[in-house]
Amino acid sequence: MIENVGFIGLGIMGQPMAGHLLKAGYRLWVYDVVEALLAKAVSNGATAAASPKEAAQNAEVVISMLPDSPIVEAVALGRDGVIESMPGGSIFVDMSTTSIITTQKIADALKERGIAMLDAPVSGGDVGAIEANLTIMAGGPSEAFDRVRPLFQKMGKNVTHVGGTGAGQVAKACNQIVVALTIEAVAEALVFAKKNGADPAKIREAMLGGFAHSRVLELHGQRMIDHNFEPGGKVRLHKKDTEIALSVAKEIGVFLPGASMVGQIWNSLTAMGGLDWDHSAIVKVIELLSQTEV
Amino acid sequence: MIENVGFIGLGIMGQPMAGHLLKAGYRLWVYDVVEALLAKAVSNGATAAASPKEAAQNAEVVISMLPDSPIVEAVALGRDGVIESMPGGSIFVDMSTTSIITTQKIADALKERGIAMLDAPVSGGDVGAIEANLTIMAGGPSEAFDRVRPLFQKMGKNVTHVGGTGAGQVAKACNQIVVALTIEAVAEALVFAKKNGADPAKIREAMLGGFAHSRVLELHGQRMIDHNFEPGGKVRLHKKDTEIALSVAKEIGVFLPGASMVGQIWNSLTAMGGLDWDHSAIVKVIELLSQTEV
Repeated sequence: MIENVGFIGLGIMGQPMAGHLLKAGYRLWVYDVVEALLAKAVSNGATAAASPKEAAQNAEVVISMLPDSPIVEAVALGRDGVIESMPGGSIFVDMSTTSIITTQKIADALKERGIAMLDAPVSGGDVGAIEANLTIMAGGPSEAFDRVRPLFQKMGKNVTHVGGTGAGQVAKACNQIVVALTIEAVAEALVFAKKNGADPAKIREAMLGGFAHSRVLELHGQRMIDHNFEPGGKVRLHKKDTEIALSVAKEIGVFLPGASMVGQIWNSLTAMGGLDWDHSAIVKVIELLSQTEV
Repeated sequence: MIENVGFIGLGIMGQPMAGHLLKAGYRLWVYDVVEALLAKAVSNGATAAASPKEAAQNAEVVISMLPDSPIVEAVALGRDGVIESMPGGSIFVDMSTTSIITTQKIADALKERGIAMLDAPVSGGDVGAIEANLTIMAGGPSEAFDRVRPLFQKMGKNVTHVGGTGAGQVAKACNQIVVALTIEAVAEALVFAKKNGADPAKIREAMLGGFAHSRVLELHGQRMIDHNFEPGGKVRLHKKDTEIALSVAKEIGVFLPGASMVGQIWNSLTAMGGLDWDHSAIVKVIELLSQTEV
């Protein structure tokens, strides 16, 4: 039974996730570089730590939820990192979205000290984090997954053990490829409809009843029709995730013409100042190049 | 109340669709160039006609379900075509997938004779036709749609009036763009997963629980994992539909980078001898170019 948890990274995702664990009765040692975020977690019942190392020293499980691969690596293996204090038999759970290469490197280093690692990135965004219905895709040893599962279930609804070390990151990359291209699909269709003089709202409705049905058509299709690009899932993050997938593909040899194309569309949205728009703003590029608005 | 129906085109789709109308008690005058198909409909209770003109002469509604735009145009406006016999006030319902330009041309010619037209292409394939759960996307005048609706409901489950003349074809084109690109998305993701040493079946399962959910991931994702490319929806037809969308886009100016890319993938499947494979065979191109199998 896990009782003591280290939690590193208390941003838009980490803060509510840590909150769910506190509410469920776990004892949390928390760390973040931003004092105000740390203070907020403390006001919810957590204990503040002065470093990742300190947050990890009493924990059976240490969870990190951080912005990118270099930060995760520093927190895990760097100076005052968790590796300096985690006891043998404990489990490091990185829930950030990182490169598969970083995951493997950290897992290897921790293994030498008898520490297991799970890579367990999530899908569902800040709303999913707040509502505790994240999709969690975990890779790593089964025994570690089984021990951490009760914690995952406090933070998410669809918790799947997808395979060995790195498989969680692979699943997340796959998820982001599928979501990005499905947004592209819906964007092209709705612009095509509008340019042909049809009503995009009715076309969306007709498509939802059939084989074109997807959650993206349902939610982001509506966003496109409303021209509501308040995030939601930010272009900035989806761009980063796409770039991770493309860089892995480059290294191991995977042909990803659709993901590459969407990579270019993220670049165009960057040019348009849209890094903080919702990722359904892909439609703005298609609109611009077709000289129409859905 | 419609009682007498002309039905032209008794192929893999038309035959079961006509069958549902016969079972519902409509009197059908049927026509097809293939004698055996005509005979089969007659054995189900239909009356054989010697031409589209003859099939249409007693009908309040004439339905066509044909392979492509030139054939639809010939059946509607050509020699011995329905235009020669349909009475004023009757309705011509083309349920084929054709170019929007053909639809407009036929609608205009029929209108001069006081005949209404609906373009009402379907999604759902032969299985949907047999099980009477086609998605039907209809364009044309509301009054005509309201009169024909009871017939649509015998053949399909999701029946939507999407707008004026041509809007049904626009909706179908949109549907095919979305489905094609979603298949591409799932294909790229599952090949990426496999090439990274992950289990595509588990990745599919994890993605189904989250925002990447789509009917294509559910059904075609499984087909890809099983390497089952028995159609289903044939590459040949999806290729034709994609080409219709791209040709309209070329004419009126719509930027469709994703649909164009899939157009190239259909070309590659043609090179591989795959025109009669299920459209989920897109994954075979991604596999070939990534040197792996899902």
